[in-house]
Amino acid sequence: MKKRKEPVPARQRFAINLRKARLMRGISQEELAELAELHRTYVGSVERGERNISIDNIERLAKALQLEIIDLL
Amino acid sequence: MKKRKEPVPARQRFAINLRKARLMRGISQEELAELAELHRTYVGSVERGERNISIDNIERLAKALQLEIIDLL
Repeated sequence: MKKRKEPVPARQRFAINLRKARLMRGISQEELAELAELHRTYVGSVERGERNISIDNIERLAKALQLEIIDLL
Repeated sequence: MKKRKEPVPARQRFAINLRKARLMRGISQEELAELAELHRTYVGSVERGERNISIDNIERLAKALQLEIIDLL
């Protein structure tokens, strides 16, 4: 019997979608961090799924990429 | 000239949608907190928009209400 796949945790989904969206715009983590007024290393750790990111920072990153939050979740 | 309405910040949207979803299920903040394994007072402060809630807790609350995160954002 095929094992039901566990859903990907929101943190991982956000990390994957953020990276994809950033690369689609051809910008670096540093450029995204600047646009979102966040630290470069913070953006890196979010993209690695290491951060339990807050809703305010999720919103900053979405705005910086001119996306809606739900596009990244 | 009609002033463009400022978009409602994500924190406020989440607060409003969380409360609406909880009331639609007829459960109290305390019952929701228990389902999500969070503190009752924390759920209250999230519903008042006072909390810069993290993605892990957003996911816990959505799961407790059997909703997707995007349903609350």
